[in-house]
Amino acid sequence: MTMKLGIMGYGNLGRGVELAITQNDDMELAAIFTRRDPASVKTAGTAPVVSAAEAADWVGKIDVMVLCGGSATDLVHQTPKYAKLFNVVDSFDTHAHIPEHFAAVDAAASEAGHTALISCGWDPGYFSLARIYFSAALPQGQHYTFWGKGVSQGHSDAIRRIPGVKDARQYTVPIEAALEKVRGGEWPTFTPREMHKRECYVVLEEGADAAAVEKAIVTMPNYFADNDTTVHFISEEELRRDHSALPHGGFVIRSGITGEDRNTRQIAELRLDLQSNPEFTGSILAACARAVHRMDALGLHGGKTLFDVAPTWLSPLRPQELRAHML
Amino acid sequence: MTMKLGIMGYGNLGRGVELAITQNDDMELAAIFTRRDPASVKTAGTAPVVSAAEAADWVGKIDVMVLCGGSATDLVHQTPKYAKLFNVVDSFDTHAHIPEHFAAVDAAASEAGHTALISCGWDPGYFSLARIYFSAALPQGQHYTFWGKGVSQGHSDAIRRIPGVKDARQYTVPIEAALEKVRGGEWPTFTPREMHKRECYVVLEEGADAAAVEKAIVTMPNYFADNDTTVHFISEEELRRDHSALPHGGFVIRSGITGEDRNTRQIAELRLDLQSNPEFTGSILAACARAVHRMDALGLHGGKTLFDVAPTWLSPLRPQELRAHML
Repeated sequence: MTMKLGIMGYGNLGRGVELAITQNDDMELAAIFTRRDPASVKTAGTAPVVSAAEAADWVGKIDVMVLCGGSATDLVHQTPKYAKLFNVVDSFDTHAHIPEHFAAVDAAASEAGHTALISCGWDPGYFSLARIYFSAALPQGQHYTFWGKGVSQGHSDAIRRIPGVKDARQYTVPIEAALEKVRGGEWPTFTPREMHKRECYVVLEEGADAAAVEKAIVTMPNYFADNDTTVHFISEEELRRDHSALPHGGFVIRSGITGEDRNTRQIAELRLDLQSNPEFTGSILAACARAVHRMDALGLHGGKTLFDVAPTWLSPLRPQELRAHML
Repeated sequence: MTMKLGIMGYGNLGRGVELAITQNDDMELAAIFTRRDPASVKTAGTAPVVSAAEAADWVGKIDVMVLCGGSATDLVHQTPKYAKLFNVVDSFDTHAHIPEHFAAVDAAASEAGHTALISCGWDPGYFSLARIYFSAALPQGQHYTFWGKGVSQGHSDAIRRIPGVKDARQYTVPIEAALEKVRGGEWPTFTPREMHKRECYVVLEEGADAAAVEKAIVTMPNYFADNDTTVHFISEEELRRDHSALPHGGFVIRSGITGEDRNTRQIAELRLDLQSNPEFTGSILAACARAVHRMDALGLHGGKTLFDVAPTWLSPLRPQELRAHML
């Protein structure tokens, strides 16, 4: 019996989930929901595209709804809303607002008797798992998160809002010397500048002032002022040709100490090197949808995070297969 | 309320658990159990050392018994035996025999209404977690496990059994070129020789034939014949001075593909770099003992592996703290 999934929102992430479902034999895509005109949405597969306004008609036909909107404007409302109708999973990634989001989702899902798993992706998500597993084993230590090399959508958008900018792509790049310091067992306190640099590829509007745009970027507070930032002006063709992919990745490193004299160094590191951030995040969401389906069947309702998910629920393999082949 | 732990078996691993308990405020060590004369056992702390024969007297005084024997001769009997009396955790690491071991432990623990978590360490253990998380997210792909650089006790023991050898230490060393191939997104099929090499430091008995010992090592089937093996003859003092630590570590890498054309490369890697294998394994066992204590309280009895353990149960932090600070 395959589980029936819905996708709410069809951007890069929704498409990533759609493709991930084709890699999992125990899943089928029941429908894709959109706020756009469904006839205008071109998908990779053959599942029906339906207006988001009709989602309630699909109650009973969808085991888990995978919510693929953005955190700030979509998920903050959508996850509590749809948790009343369906089991849901989202990739809410505004770290600072997770507690409120969890509370709202938990209340809605608990009342409705649904399972709602939030913040599933790689950060938050798999990186968070690394933090909890590593710190459980190494309670005395420090953990460090480095991102990249990869495209930050938020920083790219920030550049695009500058007058004179037609299009832009921003890469976050971890600084190798900082990584090596942490891997060497030190517990440094880094400034943002010491951990990451930023590389920007910018297409100007015709007649725009390159020097003014560059200054606006490198001095922008919160986004660029605290990092060493390089700006490259390129043509629209170059941007399309060389910078249309959405690679990302990064490192979670815990540097801990054990032993009678607390001087035994123990380093644990998770590294991701992703050619496509939305396809990988979509793949995690699909696996998490499986876990939601299992948890619902076990009566584990309410708000959940990956910290509440036994790893076995993410896998299509049976427990005895996992013990024989993965342990 | 702290949880009360017992340690069964006091070698390097038992000592690692003893030290780990001192790093966790919610745990206390009730007693250390040994098959040796308790008076002869010198421990790091102040917990009583008791004869293993008296373990049954401690029922009700110990929340979780941490079993620190070897897999082949100790745990295969001890874990089912003590699962009848206590909640238990072990580090059973003979991969090929995990299914039988699990069945025996599960039967004993289920009947007694105890929680018994097996194969907790880093491989099996945290490396197994990497395999299940990575493959759930990347169902189309290959995973690779590299060990080292680190001391293999089994291989060191195999050298010590050769006539003319007084003492020995064997390091397993991953081959960098193979690691780089996997990190590059290839799915090679490696021979053992292509993944690991072996470095041996050997102290000879007086008058032993070095050439004969070297030949006996490098041609030994199962242990050395399938790898490039280097033998260094050193003095007993050099062995003690330079090779008395038990470092280890390694890499689990999953190389997967996603996307419509299945040509998006996605790489996930867990790396451990451990100055002390028994102290790190002991630290994981302590965290797992916490999970056992929680699972017992939740009524989750029977045989378990880390695949059945929700990450939150490993951590001393409350769920809301974890969501706020680790997610």
